[in-house]
Amino acid sequence: MSVTVRRAAILTVGDELLAGRTINTNAAWLGDELGRHGYNVVRAETIPDDEEEIARTICRLADAADLVVVTGGLGPTQDDLTREGLARAAGVALREDRGLLTQIAERTQHRAQERNARMALVPVGGAAFENPVGTAPGLRLTVAGTPVYALPGPPAELRAVFAGLDLGGAPRSRRILRVYGPHEAELAETLGELLARGGEPEMGVTARGSILTVSITGAGADERAAAVRARLGDHVFGEDEDTLPGVVVATLRERGQSVAVAESLTGGAIADAIVSVPGASDVFCGGVVAYTAKAKYDLLGVPQELLDEAGTVDPRVAQAMANGARARFDADIGVATTGVAGPDPHSGRKVGDGYIAIASAAGTRVIERTGAAPRPIVRRRFTLDALWVLCRGA
Amino acid sequence: MSVTVRRAAILTVGDELLAGRTINTNAAWLGDELGRHGYNVVRAETIPDDEEEIARTICRLADAADLVVVTGGLGPTQDDLTREGLARAAGVALREDRGLLTQIAERTQHRAQERNARMALVPVGGAAFENPVGTAPGLRLTVAGTPVYALPGPPAELRAVFAGLDLGGAPRSRRILRVYGPHEAELAETLGELLARGGEPEMGVTARGSILTVSITGAGADERAAAVRARLGDHVFGEDEDTLPGVVVATLRERGQSVAVAESLTGGAIADAIVSVPGASDVFCGGVVAYTAKAKYDLLGVPQELLDEAGTVDPRVAQAMANGARARFDADIGVATTGVAGPDPHSGRKVGDGYIAIASAAGTRVIERTGAAPRPIVRRRFTLDALWVLCRGA
Repeated sequence: MSVTVRRAAILTVGDELLAGRTINTNAAWLGDELGRHGYNVVRAETIPDDEEEIARTICRLADAADLVVVTGGLGPTQDDLTREGLARAAGVALREDRGLLTQIAERTQHRAQERNARMALVPVGGAAFENPVGTAPGLRLTVAGTPVYALPGPPAELRAVFAGLDLGGAPRSRRILRVYGPHEAELAETLGELLARGGEPEMGVTARGSILTVSITGAGADERAAAVRARLGDHVFGEDEDTLPGVVVATLRERGQSVAVAESLTGGAIADAIVSVPGASDVFCGGVVAYTAKAKYDLLGVPQELLDEAGTVDPRVAQAMANGARARFDADIGVATTGVAGPDPHSGRKVGDGYIAIASAAGTRVIERTGAAPRPIVRRRFTLDALWVLCRGA
Repeated sequence: MSVTVRRAAILTVGDELLAGRTINTNAAWLGDELGRHGYNVVRAETIPDDEEEIARTICRLADAADLVVVTGGLGPTQDDLTREGLARAAGVALREDRGLLTQIAERTQHRAQERNARMALVPVGGAAFENPVGTAPGLRLTVAGTPVYALPGPPAELRAVFAGLDLGGAPRSRRILRVYGPHEAELAETLGELLARGGEPEMGVTARGSILTVSITGAGADERAAAVRARLGDHVFGEDEDTLPGVVVATLRERGQSVAVAESLTGGAIADAIVSVPGASDVFCGGVVAYTAKAKYDLLGVPQELLDEAGTVDPRVAQAMANGARARFDADIGVATTGVAGPDPHSGRKVGDGYIAIASAAGTRVIERTGAAPRPIVRRRFTLDALWVLCRGA
């Protein structure tokens, strides 16, 4: 083990995690954050809400790592035993922190004071950290020479308290690129040797709902990010927490353009994605979900002869829908989708086949899409494709 | 510990889990399945792809539990060291299984035979289990008197191999109820003593995106499910894998009714949810996302005087939108939403305020909704409320 890489262990506490009622997303989030802070996570364990088990496991992990982060079990109920377990691991008592007690009473509007008073207990020799988005504070205590942090379990609270910690050492530089278009395997091929393990900067790729996230951590992250961008071109749609709809709204706002949508197989998903962005009303006029041929004719003015002749899955229908949306809502840009979401083929077309059209003053473009997949994936691909097209401009 | 509840431990192996590149969904899935098979999961640990660490941890877990399930690290690459670690835990060698070797060679079409041959290695004294959806078989070996199963890490393979195991004992009966409406704390209050820990049947409640799932496991599950239904009434919208949009489509299909939507703050989310259900076209006509006052007037026929006088967040506007959707799409039922999604108040109304209207031949009903929350939560609540109203009938 290199001298500069420090070992961290993660302990998550909670019966609900062991029984599978909750998926442990905190461990992954902490693993990623600790990596960014220069720690190598050597183990992650989950145990029940049991004081003795908590104490014993903290001792073992403190022995095996240079830093231990515990989450969960800091709430006000009798099941929450992490603060007791932490104190026991170090062989110290809990003391009531008057400042915390006042703060907690205020935040809980003096309800259930006796119960909530437990959250003002701090191990002797330890420190408490303010929880800016919740009631239970974070705790720090040294156990057998190793710093142990106990942080609240609700993800938003964990993140907020973690952000306030000083874990020592300078965090490594990090770049996060957000990518849409290639599959994970295609991305690996395109990036090739840049992804090789064990180098500096370290590279990681995660996929979630067709969006790939490329993380670059360590010395040379900026240069590597530029190299990745050079290979992926405009498939890199943003950085950090950017989302495709967020970039669509920001881009249209910058250009002073408005958009309206006409959706068949995406069924409202494009509109929903855009409206999910705060301030979407600056650029979004509205949309029509034209799920039937009749609605395409009635609400979007798609010619009945075209529908009779070509059916609903046709490039000219997509084009007419995009133009119809643009005209109906008096928008600068109209976007339309029509296709076969599945599970059954229709209009003589296969599942996954369809069209995305984008209409503007400059004219109308139609993009063909094919590729069978389960219904939710087909619908998501059309939705993300349409958003990606909007990011790049009409 | 009761004699009938056996202790299980879960070990997941993989650097990608510790670094946070992958969220550990296998542990939750196994926790739930093991619970259903009568096991109490007492710990879940994640460790790196390190032979000695794997061996040492398997030994410790075999000591602490009556069953150990290991996942990950069974692939063909040099990083996959679970089979070596398992053999080492029991102090046995690995032998090549000729039958497996042939099977693997066939499945991999004789590519990379040398590399893939590792997957035909079985610890001496152990057994292999066929992987119906992948190449790496599952393994079983007794370590210090405790059965240890090593299963592939890809979730689909884990599930397929797990399904073929005989873990001893009869799986316990289980009922799953799906609930919308109450918050988790309200549910706990309503169900009260039924949720008490340590009883039979065992009860669990999980919350995901405002939908609560009540699981009831063990003897008397059916009677308990009836008792829960009696207390929660029509807040129980389904069982098992039922979703609100799925129940909406099934209910409307049963009644022979069609629906159209008019969405303002939900912005296409209701339409999207309905269209996500295969066969939605049987009942769904379409919708209008009327995000602006102009669109409410132009496309839905909301009277301009009303919009001028009352603004967009008004019960009469919601009513006119629902009627407009019903008329425009020639549907049996029209549903509409209008309100303040946030982050800023508008039309003189607070974030979270708004209306859901439902129109049918029987007339129009309007439901008022209030309660500040972050934008995504406000939007989700209106969406789910509208779907729940549709489940119960116009």
